[in-house]
Amino acid sequence: MTIQPLQITSRDNPLLLKLRKLAQDPAAYRKLGEIWVEGDHLCAACLTRNVPVRQGVFSQSAWEQPALRALARGAPRVAVVPDALFKAFSGLESPTGCGYLLPLDEGAAVLPGVATVVLDRLQDAGNAGSVLRSAAALGVRQIVALKGTVALWSPKVLRAGMGAHFGLHLVEQATLADLDRLGVPLVGTSSHTPAELHQTALPSPCAWVLGHEGQGIEAELLARCALTVRIPQPGGEESLNVAAAAAICLYESLRQRPAA
Amino acid sequence: MTIQPLQITSRDNPLLLKLRKLAQDPAAYRKLGEIWVEGDHLCAACLTRNVPVRQGVFSQSAWEQPALRALARGAPRVAVVPDALFKAFSGLESPTGCGYLLPLDEGAAVLPGVATVVLDRLQDAGNAGSVLRSAAALGVRQIVALKGTVALWSPKVLRAGMGAHFGLHLVEQATLADLDRLGVPLVGTSSHTPAELHQTALPSPCAWVLGHEGQGIEAELLARCALTVRIPQPGGEESLNVAAAAAICLYESLRQRPAA
Repeated sequence: MTIQPLQITSRDNPLLLKLRKLAQDPAAYRKLGEIWVEGDHLCAACLTRNVPVRQGVFSQSAWEQPALRALARGAPRVAVVPDALFKAFSGLESPTGCGYLLPLDEGAAVLPGVATVVLDRLQDAGNAGSVLRSAAALGVRQIVALKGTVALWSPKVLRAGMGAHFGLHLVEQATLADLDRLGVPLVGTSSHTPAELHQTALPSPCAWVLGHEGQGIEAELLARCALTVRIPQPGGEESLNVAAAAAICLYESLRQRPAA
Repeated sequence: MTIQPLQITSRDNPLLLKLRKLAQDPAAYRKLGEIWVEGDHLCAACLTRNVPVRQGVFSQSAWEQPALRALARGAPRVAVVPDALFKAFSGLESPTGCGYLLPLDEGAAVLPGVATVVLDRLQDAGNAGSVLRSAAALGVRQIVALKGTVALWSPKVLRAGMGAHFGLHLVEQATLADLDRLGVPLVGTSSHTPAELHQTALPSPCAWVLGHEGQGIEAELLARCALTVRIPQPGGEESLNVAAAAAICLYESLRQRPAA
């Protein structure tokens, strides 16, 4: 089947206006209801996971490369734009020139009873992406991001996530009340607790709570944790990056779980 | 003691020329022999660790804040520059307006017999900084960066390291031959090896080898590893970020080590 692309030449075209908005404002997808997923790696991850795609967007030079053009098969509609116009909404220094628009699933509700990571106002896009990537690799099913957390479907978090978004159930803008629906114990980390991670029997499944980079877990949320543990840190005053701490906690959960 | 600062007003002052070079080129410290350490958190970390400081640099408005001005006590010389000129060499979006110039220890040689992390052409500054931070927190003594690895004393890596640099012995521009002097077994990770990390007895101390973000560990170096292990990843095709993988490996080393 040969896909007939729409050739766009005007920078005022509504599709390009939308893409520029999505590029400029990391949380614009919430207003616009669509997510911009850029680059061949992320597009291929969408195809692997059968993610519904609304629109493919290619630069002229990408469209002329068969390997990239092949990504059009995942899209019901395709637009091709001059390279210079593509650059205006690309988040990459050297754009590969391909991307998908995906519909945002706005009604995502908390899944009960599954291994979860709760993000409490995480601020850094790179950290959030790395946490999602570790979660997907280490067997977590769901991410619940509380209000005040960086926008998970922003281009930067998508890039750092390397496709992990498409293997996880993501809930954003959650409240503390939403956490009651998890049905699994909340587990937090704290440097002020005596229980050391590797010497503590962890509930499985559980919901690991990761706090704000500077402030840690908010007091009311920490009080809701069924368990708090401390990652042993013989190095003394240095602390761990939150994504590194997440990787360690998720690994320890996996290590303690009897092999499936 | 009252420190008399040098008031600099010309943007052509040699000190400011040097600072702008250090800000523009992440590896400029190798040519200039001095490292630019910016922000109150990193400066305080230098003081805690008794790191030798060559020069303190303050913006006018930082100099007027007693809490920041107190950082001058760690510096034998202090310069104060107008805020607008400080911005030209700051790597921060909102500069706190303070920093130190440190002498680069160029002759750092490999320390034998200590827990080490070897970086094989790691490219991303944020990853390198996060690895250093995990290493310092989890009891590693030394980082050996092979040629082709991101410049560890660059402003971005320093920022992500959050002070970890000052608690570690750092060797840069190392060759494979230098690794012979480590005197501890090299341990690498690979997704193609059957030995799972948590089921493998790890040598202690050892040198964990972390590979290039895209290419992994170079073949000749992988062949030198006494042991390769696989981090269990039930999530399937997703992979871990290298800094997340490092945190997991260093944690597992610590977990297996008998308490000191």
